[in-house]
Amino acid sequence: MKNELLDLVTKRKTARIFDNREVNFEDILYCIKLAIQAPSGANRQPWRFMIIDDPIIRKKLREKCEEQEKIFHENVNAELKKWFRSKKIMWLKPHLTAAPYLLAIFSDQNMVYATESTWLTIGYILIGIEEKSLSTVTYTPPNPDALREIFGSPKNYKLETILPIGYSVDTKQKEERQSIETLTYRNQWSEKINKNVNQH
Amino acid sequence: MKNELLDLVTKRKTARIFDNREVNFEDILYCIKLAIQAPSGANRQPWRFMIIDDPIIRKKLREKCEEQEKIFHENVNAELKKWFRSKKIMWLKPHLTAAPYLLAIFSDQNMVYATESTWLTIGYILIGIEEKSLSTVTYTPPNPDALREIFGSPKNYKLETILPIGYSVDTKQKEERQSIETLTYRNQWSEKINKNVNQH
Repeated sequence: MKNELLDLVTKRKTARIFDNREVNFEDILYCIKLAIQAPSGANRQPWRFMIIDDPIIRKKLREKCEEQEKIFHENVNAELKKWFRSKKIMWLKPHLTAAPYLLAIFSDQNMVYATESTWLTIGYILIGIEEKSLSTVTYTPPNPDALREIFGSPKNYKLETILPIGYSVDTKQKEERQSIETLTYRNQWSEKINKNVNQH
Repeated sequence: MKNELLDLVTKRKTARIFDNREVNFEDILYCIKLAIQAPSGANRQPWRFMIIDDPIIRKKLREKCEEQEKIFHENVNAELKKWFRSKKIMWLKPHLTAAPYLLAIFSDQNMVYATESTWLTIGYILIGIEEKSLSTVTYTPPNPDALREIFGSPKNYKLETILPIGYSVDTKQKEERQSIETLTYRNQWSEKINKNVNQH
C-alpha cells in the first residue's frame, strides 16, 4: 500500500453540502468497525455511536442545534466571527437534514481519557469515510447538553460530534495546511525540523 | 483498496517493548505528513510535533516521567490499580529510552477544540505507524506540565501524548474489543443496532 494512506488523507476535505444519493448502510457500519479497533485509555472503550436516519429525529436535532448556533454566533469572539464570515459558515446547519445519515459519537466521561480516546477514534472514522468515497464535516454542536433529550442519552455520555455522512457536492477547496517545517521540532522547542530533515 | 484500512486497524496493537532495529527517519516524517492533513476546529491546526532522538534528552524525559508515574500509581483508584496489575503495567517506562524515536505531540490550548483536534490527528498517526509496520503506545504522562522544562515548550502548549516509535517485540495479544452491537444505537439510546442491522 505505497503511500495510499497519505493519498487518502490528502484528498480528504470537509464537506457541508450533500446531495440525496443513497448511502450504503454497510459503509456506515464499516466506519464503526474501524472505530472500535482504536486504542483507548486503559482500554476502556469509552465511545458510543448512534446512527441517525429517522427524518423526524433529524429535523428535531437540526432545530435544536440551530437554536443553539444562533446564541453561539451572537457571542463568538471577534477573531472567530471574522473567520466564520470569511468561510460563509453561519448558524444554519442544513447538512443535519440533507446527508442521508448522521453519526453521533459520545464519550463516557466517567472513564479515563474519554474525550481524548474518542477523538482518536473519530480520526479513524474520518479516514474510513474517505475510503468509502463519502464525505463529512466534524460538526460540534455548541451546547451538546441541550440535545440529550432528543438522543435519550445518559448524563455521563458527552456528545463529542455529529458527523453528517453522504456524497459531497461541496465545491469548496480544502483549507490550506501549514507545512511540516512550521509545525515540527527536533529534540527542543527552539530547534525547528527544517534544519534537520536532510541531516540524518 | 478493499477493506485494507480495516485490515490495518484490526492488525494494529499497542506495543510497549521495542528492539533496537533502526527506524527510517522518513517514516516518522511520513506520519507527520498524514497528521497535518487532518481537519481541526476552525482550521486552527493547533498541533505541534516534536521528534526526539537525542539520548540525553530521552533519559531526562524518562526519569521525570517515572518520577511522576510513581506518584500516580500510588494514588490511582482501586479499579485502575487492579487493571494495571492485571496488565503488568507499572511506573517503569523503558519504552521512552528503548524505541529509536519519540514523537511528542502538543496542542495550543488557546485555540478552539485544541485537544479534540489533536487527538483526532493522533488517530491518523497511529494508522500511519501501522502502515509503516512500526508500533507504538499512546503514552500519556500523568503530569505533562512537569516535562515542560525538558521540552522548552511554551505554557499554552499542552503535551497530549508521547509516542515511542519502533519495531515491536511485544508478544502481548491485542486487548479485547467490545462488539459493534454493544456500542452502537439507532436513532435513540434505547434502540440498539443489533435489531436493525439486517432491516434496511
